[in-house]
Amino acid sequence: MKYGIAIFPSKRVQDFANSYRKRYDSHYALIPPHITLKSAFEADEQQIDQIVQELQRIAAETAVIPLTITKFSSFYPSNTVIYLKVEPNETLTALHQKLYSGIFTDQPEFAFVPHITIGRDLSDGEYFDVYGQLKMQTVHFSETADRFHLLYQLEDGAWTVYETFRLGKENA
Amino acid sequence: MKYGIAIFPSKRVQDFANSYRKRYDSHYALIPPHITLKSAFEADEQQIDQIVQELQRIAAETAVIPLTITKFSSFYPSNTVIYLKVEPNETLTALHQKLYSGIFTDQPEFAFVPHITIGRDLSDGEYFDVYGQLKMQTVHFSETADRFHLLYQLEDGAWTVYETFRLGKENA
Repeated sequence: MKYGIAIFPSKRVQDFANSYRKRYDSHYALIPPHITLKSAFEADEQQIDQIVQELQRIAAETAVIPLTITKFSSFYPSNTVIYLKVEPNETLTALHQKLYSGIFTDQPEFAFVPHITIGRDLSDGEYFDVYGQLKMQTVHFSETADRFHLLYQLEDGAWTVYETFRLGKENA
Repeated sequence: MKYGIAIFPSKRVQDFANSYRKRYDSHYALIPPHITLKSAFEADEQQIDQIVQELQRIAAETAVIPLTITKFSSFYPSNTVIYLKVEPNETLTALHQKLYSGIFTDQPEFAFVPHITIGRDLSDGEYFDVYGQLKMQTVHFSETADRFHLLYQLEDGAWTVYETFRLGKENA
């Protein structure tokens, strides 16, 4: 089964992101707006039990995470993904690193650029049109994430939450 | 903010349900296949903290839940919803009751018929056509739910998971 790990920002930020995703993101219906901490990886039932325990341990030792969203940005010319930029910070980066070390033997495909995707699979023409407008727009959200989620992927590509991990809490 | 409480069945059952929901359920993109335990209710941030605590308490005292899915059924003629019937059992019914008592002062709109919706908003013609085929089909899934989820609704109608509650575990 394929799993992934993500943070959902506040409803306010999700509503803002979805107002664009609806039009520009082909994954709009598959998952709510999110910051990917660990992209899709394979695990069987036995492995996932061990991973859940490890995530509880990691969550317990991780402080709540400041999320500051400052602008629209993009991965162009690598691809035409447009995203809301989440300012990197030590806590977020350290958490990302922990999800790619220890029992997690896979390596990240890209350097960690925390972001919330709002557009993808755009043609070059669409991309320039949409991004040209968005990059002029002022964006500022500042909030705190106090949890992350382990999700699994269904056959149609949609993601279901398997478990929530609260940061720095007695729950671990 | 609007919240709801639901169980997600196994990936196997979700994949099966989605193969129909894709075509027949207008809510397909809004939430994964689920059994509603408590339908949409309003709560503010302060209330939700209290509700989360109560849900932890309820989850801790609730055993894992047998989910036996036996056939397609429908709410016709009340409406044209088609669903996978989940056999009622004491644990499931008791959990449902707890989510409508104590600090939860709202009352259920309908008698509790545990189900996984796979079609809705069908015209009468579509309904008879689809349900006529499905009701002949043999369905049997038997599994155990060990958790439920508290979700909140975004402005576009989609649901995001807020927190997971494991049944009968030390996590409460």
